[in-house]
Amino acid sequence: MSEYIEHDRDGISVGLVEKKFFTFSEPPDQLILESGTRLGPITLAYETYGTLNRDKSNAVLVLHALTGDSHVAGYYDHQDQKPGWWDIMVGPGKGIDTNKYFVICSNIIGGCMGSTGPGSIDPDTGQPFGCNFPVITIGDMVRVQKRLLDKLGIRRLLSVVGGSIGGMQVLEWCVRYPDMAASAMPLATTAKHSALAIAFNEVARQAIMADPSWNGGDYLRSGKKPDLGLAVARMIGHITYLSDDAMRRKFGRRLQDRENFSYDFSADFQIESYLRYQGTKFVERFDANSFLHITKAADYFDLERQHGEGSLVKAFSKAKAEFLVVSFTSDWLYPTYQSKDLVKAMKKNRLDVSFCEIEADFGHDAFLLPNKRLSSLICGFLEGVFKDLN
Amino acid sequence: MSEYIEHDRDGISVGLVEKKFFTFSEPPDQLILESGTRLGPITLAYETYGTLNRDKSNAVLVLHALTGDSHVAGYYDHQDQKPGWWDIMVGPGKGIDTNKYFVICSNIIGGCMGSTGPGSIDPDTGQPFGCNFPVITIGDMVRVQKRLLDKLGIRRLLSVVGGSIGGMQVLEWCVRYPDMAASAMPLATTAKHSALAIAFNEVARQAIMADPSWNGGDYLRSGKKPDLGLAVARMIGHITYLSDDAMRRKFGRRLQDRENFSYDFSADFQIESYLRYQGTKFVERFDANSFLHITKAADYFDLERQHGEGSLVKAFSKAKAEFLVVSFTSDWLYPTYQSKDLVKAMKKNRLDVSFCEIEADFGHDAFLLPNKRLSSLICGFLEGVFKDLN
Repeated sequence: MSEYIEHDRDGISVGLVEKKFFTFSEPPDQLILESGTRLGPITLAYETYGTLNRDKSNAVLVLHALTGDSHVAGYYDHQDQKPGWWDIMVGPGKGIDTNKYFVICSNIIGGCMGSTGPGSIDPDTGQPFGCNFPVITIGDMVRVQKRLLDKLGIRRLLSVVGGSIGGMQVLEWCVRYPDMAASAMPLATTAKHSALAIAFNEVARQAIMADPSWNGGDYLRSGKKPDLGLAVARMIGHITYLSDDAMRRKFGRRLQDRENFSYDFSADFQIESYLRYQGTKFVERFDANSFLHITKAADYFDLERQHGEGSLVKAFSKAKAEFLVVSFTSDWLYPTYQSKDLVKAMKKNRLDVSFCEIEADFGHDAFLLPNKRLSSLICGFLEGVFKDLN
Repeated sequence: MSEYIEHDRDGISVGLVEKKFFTFSEPPDQLILESGTRLGPITLAYETYGTLNRDKSNAVLVLHALTGDSHVAGYYDHQDQKPGWWDIMVGPGKGIDTNKYFVICSNIIGGCMGSTGPGSIDPDTGQPFGCNFPVITIGDMVRVQKRLLDKLGIRRLLSVVGGSIGGMQVLEWCVRYPDMAASAMPLATTAKHSALAIAFNEVARQAIMADPSWNGGDYLRSGKKPDLGLAVARMIGHITYLSDDAMRRKFGRRLQDRENFSYDFSADFQIESYLRYQGTKFVERFDANSFLHITKAADYFDLERQHGEGSLVKAFSKAKAEFLVVSFTSDWLYPTYQSKDLVKAMKKNRLDVSFCEIEADFGHDAFLLPNKRLSSLICGFLEGVFKDLN
């Protein structure tokens, strides 16, 4: 594994990083969630990369998507086989250059990667929350991230950046705490889920809840998890992350380890085998209740409803950030027209907006894949904002 | 219900119709399926409308899609609330005019609407086939339809018509029995499933097979059916039958019987409620094993692999029919480019082909919905072919 250390020296990875924890909202001062329910204590798992400069003007907050975590870049130890989920973008000399910027990422609440979520212990019962974990919103996620920044002493972010559900958090940041974000990069995201996006999430949730092992959400004590339902949910997700083109190139109608049809219900096609594998692998690392909670938060997210009395233009009237909005041609989960709606509403508020639709065949997943165009856009945008501020 | 009778007089419905049955392939002369397995006796449920003319030159074979049946048009009795699934197209004075043509439709084998399928009794065991029902193909479906036509004494069809999986059967008819189809109308269909279409089917199948009540396919004796899994499978299907646009117009983000979010996992949005309803309703009328078998047959269908040694042009070299190929702009399950591939291969064989892409917002479902353009296209095409032949 010394290869990675060499990479570090060459400026390819941030190297070894550490997951940290911050606990707050202790009773009786619990956070009141948007649903009205009280939650506390709350723990956030987070990581930081690079160095905060003296005037604390170089902080970039990265916000992760549905199944992401605080581990954006680097490795936990020398045996670690895989770097963080956006190691291609965050590191020395990369799009978000850790030689210049101080990068922060926290696992969202409701998740299962160290932050408080349905798998955490409910202090009232001493048992895992399970089905008793309150429904959380994108607004709640952002409000607890603000507490983390307060604790880190950061009063203004150079930028907030994230894709998909991370992008929703970016938008929420800009209208909820307009003075705290000098700039923002919502990538492959939307101001509100379409009926189609809600439909996919709902079917995925139904697949989990149809699994008898889900047991009304109370499965952690029984020891039997709704793995089959969660695997189906993940398979549905994977279809929406790709595109017709990407699937045709990646799999087409190629058969899996055979020359002829099996004439049974085993995985004949590579695409079937791929989906089954993704489903099975996912249940090892993700919690079914977290999947339910995070998808519900994404479906509820509606910037114009929550911040603009039904008008997206009005919602952005509070924002002050300079924006870089990015969509991808083959993303049919959050198609370009939804990014354009964002851009239009921003422009009507005379906000400084750059917009780019990147030609990419990989569907919604494109924002997570190596893409020189995206890296250079982000790099240039951050440089410009940093220069203007200093 | 006398309203319907009046409609009959006005030429709006074919009126009262009857489901008939034809049984053949009795042991020891069972049909050998494409998988190599023997199947027999085989029963087909079928219906006919209109009158076969003296020289038997006015027969139109209608082929149904995944969850359809032999009941294309009309009513079974005066209490019947709903007409057949394509009553808008088949009837006196309609696109397929039963005053002129003799229309035949049989339920596909592998189905659950009267034809032999996984729910039928296996003569070897005296129990329902369940998981022992052999995997069938689109080719098998067409071969047994041919037996029905032989029995009806029809040696040449004026036309074969069908959408989706019905359209696959249309294509199979034209290359397998080229002398039997004077014309053919494959609607909203494809010569082979894309990886995306296979992916959706596979996830739907996994949802069924993940349901413990599926019990390896052997659930009919236990009395507990995989209703939850089948409902999820149907929900996945319904997403693919609509389109982003259609869903936005039909549901948008409207809430179901409430003004605010529930902050729980009930159906907040109308689209959620719709999908749950469709799932629940479906399990009352459809068999989970039939769903598995028919989707597998559709995934296996590959005209160029089975009839053209890998070339679609070669596959159509056997065809003689005059074609009307129709696609719909918002159909993302079988997009227009797949219909164009058909048309190109037909034209390279100098076949007489008309092609029309119909502007429609309803996604794949469009071919089943009232559409004046489609009705008049089909009507005109049939008239032309009938005139040429007589």
